Amino acid sequence: MNRFGTRFTLTTYGESHGPAIGGVVDGCPAGVVFDGNMIANEMLRRHIGAGATKRCEADTVEILSGVFEGRTLGTPIAFEIRNQDANSSDYDELRELYRPGHADYTYAMRYGIRDHRGGGRASGRETAARVVGGAIAKMILREKGISINGGVLHLAESNNDNDDTKGGVIECTITGVPAGIGNPVFDKLNARLAAAIMSIPSAIGFEMGAGFAAAKMCGSEYRDEWSDCSSAITKTNHCGGIQGGISNGMPIVFRTAFHPVVTNNKPTECMAVDGTLHLWKPKGRHDSCHIPRTVVVVEAMAAMTIVDLLN
Amino acid sequence: MNRFGTRFTLTTYGESHGPAIGGVVDGCPAGVVFDGNMIANEMLRRHIGAGATKRCEADTVEILSGVFEGRTLGTPIAFEIRNQDANSSDYDELRELYRPGHADYTYAMRYGIRDHRGGGRASGRETAARVVGGAIAKMILREKGISINGGVLHLAESNNDNDDTKGGVIECTITGVPAGIGNPVFDKLNARLAAAIMSIPSAIGFEMGAGFAAAKMCGSEYRDEWSDCSSAITKTNHCGGIQGGISNGMPIVFRTAFHPVVTNNKPTECMAVDGTLHLWKPKGRHDSCHIPRTVVVVEAMAAMTIVDLLN
Amino acid sequence: MNRFGTRFTLTTYGESHGPAIGGVVDGCPAGVVFDGNMIANEMLRRHIGAGATKRCEADTVEILSGVFEGRTLGTPIAFEIRNQDANSSDYDELRELYRPGHADYTYAMRYGIRDHRGGGRASGRETAARVVGGAIAKMILREKGISINGGVLHLAESNNDNDDTKGGVIECTITGVPAGIGNPVFDKLNARLAAAIMSIPSAIGFEMGAGFAAAKMCGSEYRDEWSDCSSAITKTNHCGGIQGGISNGMPIVFRTAFHPVVTNNKPTECMAVDGTLHLWKPKGRHDSCHIPRTVVVVEAMAAMTIVDLLN
Amino acid sequence: MNRFGTRFTLTTYGESHGPAIGGVVDGCPAGVVFDGNMIANEMLRRHIGAGATKRCEADTVEILSGVFEGRTLGTPIAFEIRNQDANSSDYDELRELYRPGHADYTYAMRYGIRDHRGGGRASGRETAARVVGGAIAKMILREKGISINGGVLHLAESNNDNDDTKGGVIECTITGVPAGIGNPVFDKLNARLAAAIMSIPSAIGFEMGAGFAAAKMCGSEYRDEWSDCSSAITKTNHCGGIQGGISNGMPIVFRTAFHPVVTNNKPTECMAVDGTLHLWKPKGRHDSCHIPRTVVVVEAMAAMTIVDLLN
Repeated sequence: MNRFGTRFTLTTYGESHGPAIGGVVDGCPAGVVFDGNMIANEMLRRHIGAGATKRCEADTVEILSGVFEGRTLGTPIAFEIRNQDANSSDYDELRELYRPGHADYTYAMRYGIRDHRGGGRASGRETAARVVGGAIAKMILREKGISINGGVLHLAESNNDNDDTKGGVIECTITGVPAGIGNPVFDKLNARLAAAIMSIPSAIGFEMGAGFAAAKMCGSEYRDEWSDCSSAITKTNHCGGIQGGISNGMPIVFRTAFHPVVTNNKPTECMAVDGTLHLWKPKGRHDSCHIPRTVVVVEAMAAMTIVDLLN
Repeated sequence: MNRFGTRFTLTTYGESHGPAIGGVVDGCPAGVVFDGNMIANEMLRRHIGAGATKRCEADTVEILSGVFEGRTLGTPIAFEIRNQDANSSDYDELRELYRPGHADYTYAMRYGIRDHRGGGRASGRETAARVVGGAIAKMILREKGISINGGVLHLAESNNDNDDTKGGVIECTITGVPAGIGNPVFDKLNARLAAAIMSIPSAIGFEMGAGFAAAKMCGSEYRDEWSDCSSAITKTNHCGGIQGGISNGMPIVFRTAFHPVVTNNKPTECMAVDGTLHLWKPKGRHDSCHIPRTVVVVEAMAAMTIVDLLN
Repeated sequence: MNRFGTRFTLTTYGESHGPAIGGVVDGCPAGVVFDGNMIANEMLRRHIGAGATKRCEADTVEILSGVFEGRTLGTPIAFEIRNQDANSSDYDELRELYRPGHADYTYAMRYGIRDHRGGGRASGRETAARVVGGAIAKMILREKGISINGGVLHLAESNNDNDDTKGGVIECTITGVPAGIGNPVFDKLNARLAAAIMSIPSAIGFEMGAGFAAAKMCGSEYRDEWSDCSSAITKTNHCGGIQGGISNGMPIVFRTAFHPVVTNNKPTECMAVDGTLHLWKPKGRHDSCHIPRTVVVVEAMAAMTIVDLLN
Repeated sequence: MNRFGTRFTLTTYGESHGPAIGGVVDGCPAGVVFDGNMIANEMLRRHIGAGATKRCEADTVEILSGVFEGRTLGTPIAFEIRNQDANSSDYDELRELYRPGHADYTYAMRYGIRDHRGGGRASGRETAARVVGGAIAKMILREKGISINGGVLHLAESNNDNDDTKGGVIECTITGVPAGIGNPVFDKLNARLAAAIMSIPSAIGFEMGAGFAAAKMCGSEYRDEWSDCSSAITKTNHCGGIQGGISNGMPIVFRTAFHPVVTNNKPTECMAVDGTLHLWKPKGRHDSCHIPRTVVVVEAMAAMTIVDLLN
């Protein structure tokens, strides 16, 4: 449930206001040069998006195993991020309240018990562990000449209300993946990517290449014919670099839609455990726009997906 | 690779022009009333969409195990569909050619060998096994009051060329799923659905609830507030019935974009094994529009996804 | 549940008196020369052990997919064995009876329903599918210079009663496995072998190398010191070729104890569904000694275990 | 590779002389009363066997997630044990040496790189994480009335040399498991147990019930007939409580043979990386007999196996 991947796997843990969050990467090849700076830089990219929360996450990532004299051992790489500055009292009133659009109610239905502080396990803070796993995956991809670049393609327009939160779309391009990566039928590379990306908090749509626009095309318009057979380059890339679930050597291109963070500074009606409605004014800290800091999370999930299939 | 699910699993096999296609359902609960008619009806829905290929698939599904005196045993349910009317000679010229937009080239790169007849393993014919698995899943869901209904939401407009193929969008609604189904973080219900649906041939986009439109919303517009706490009904369903990866009891709604079938009756340039381009006029049989017959495939994948998480 | 392996996988199905038994091999590498005779020969080894049942299993194995022009495609290889000569009436009286030592009672408790004819899914006939999977694994191992040889090490002594059944011990040696195959901690090669072998019907004990005798040794006696460093050969092989769960390049040696077939031609007390005891005289056909025909099953499970870890 | 189980899973990490060892339990049911004392007591049982090493493992287990106000949340339970008193200099000379009977050579062949200090990942210290996972599993089993009791059945006789190490046999009995637990064919309860137990360092043999003695029996002697149908109790328990891979409600009984710790205080010939032999006098600390402290590890693996199948 809390594990990603099949050969290169990341198992994560941690509640927003517990002692720590972290994870274990199992299946990392041995002998990879371990680049601690890459982890720090990726964590910084996650931290300093426009509109980052005021809660200062001095997120120091400690590596507990799997690295010896600067290289990976092939054994599990465990890492840990201690939680700090967690003002739990901000959340006391939520012990009995379910916020609209959040996982408060669904976690209660799923488990019958929940940590109400800061979203508990469902907090966006969970994505920090994804970024560490992604940074380790990028160390492997870099040695193979594969690069992953994401960016914000679109943000919801301002409604002149700086208190409100905004959705947006992130586009990501993966270059350098050789032809022949992926599996047929159920375990397709595009299916793997879709699951990886849709598991990111607030992801609500996913498309490859031409995506939903392809639904308005006819076959003779859509199909990607070859322009250069020597390197199997196509005139167009409507398919987004994947055919039959397997990479064709062209750049892998996908876009993801993210809905806005549901909690902002406007009062909202919460459902109480006793089934009554209560107007609630959030006291916590929230992103007005979390899309820019989510780019590195998208890249991380894409990186782990590719490494898992390359292994 | 050719297996779907974790507890209720479907393993499929078969090339388009081999002796048979089929599959094994493992993890089906014991004692379920086995409804052979449901399988026949679902196979018919797949067969008779508008613009179905002329190749007459007299697809008789034979059950080989797992059913005893009208009920499931809890042991594997194997089924088989013998291939008939397979005019392989239609495909001889493709032994050395890769068709644009098809998986011919990627399979060759992945395996170094391929069955060139009718797309081999990558043929749309593979979806017949999905439909059988989905029908068995629906037998279980029916006993639990869960129903799945898909339909064609949009088709590419005719360009007055009845030889060309068309893309489209299918919408699917799942009702009756109780709150609390799904898992956190990586194994979210929406991530599972995305992978299941994106694994369908020609699927190229997926969105839940408001989907890409949510990327243009602000938080106070997006969040689904409750209208009726007694049954946890919300005024809107922008999230599509899932929060934090877990169902909230509202209808689960998603849409999928399908690109047009890439091979139609127009000549196209194929890449030969020797790296030269060849104009090719398809002789095989192709759907002008496969979207209507794909609806039952979408439902099948959704049904197996829900059953897998209920088990 | 009915699937073996993680990369080279075998999923089996079938009840003893249903239409067919069979399986699907998924994860077989592409381009392997497919040797149908090896399958036939291995099936024959399973069929003609001393004391084989009189039920003549004319077991023709039909390959339904995954093989094209004499080589594997890398896609699933499905095979099927139709059941013949199944005299179900032999078993009518067992509909309400649980035989001692059989899985009749435990299947009823596990599933609430069972196919009482000939042991249903729990019949030793299920091992035919293992033998086919093992034969395919051996095609791969042969190309890598790995061979697997089993033999009967010990049989229970005759008690001058030719109607009774006998237990025994099978020893198996795997040669040609390079050093470095296997995984640490939980997924050890010896743990994998133990699970594979103990899953064979009537297996009740498993040991590597010196096995239980090693429990009576002291460390300076047990440890395998090197005699030839150039090829890492050790003076002794008490560990059975595996250290820390990983092969060391020496022959992999293990032994398996099998209990006698519990049903013979002597009357025995069965428990009825209503909780009463009934003396029952078996009418079916049973091996007086199934150990010799089990050798090929042991080899098959070992072969699939090695291939799965090599993949 | 470093993960145990399918529904109740334990992923472990850590090298003997790295910063820490630990693990993540994923799949623990929600609402279980979390008993920290049970963890401490089990860790103590592992620590104080006769002949425990002099290295004082002040093993404090810190829980990092998954527990809230004294109950499990259903989210991952991460725990960590910091390494202390790790005198790495004891092992400097082993950087270029492979000890006989250890995993030094096989890890080098598997990964091409290894942490030579104290056995690295292959150190017996790894079992501490198993004990924590087992303690959490026992918290669940206790609520279900299932108990697991192991003991030393046999120890290698003293050869009047208190410097040498000894092998032995541990017997374990699981009571309170209802009939119907386990799966058919490949995923049998006995196969699961065999893999779990054989994954313990120095385990070299495994048997259920009558075990190897059953190989000398005839069918009419072996089969377990019922003495009391009202509670399905059998006169004998030669099968060890499992038939067809599924529990029958009788006590589950198994025995495991352990070879002696290979390193003792006697000089031994090691193979150097350059392929030469070197006489080596161990300086580290080693158990003269590790069997008594291994009992709790056997129980832990059995407990996790049962919980995984109950989930």
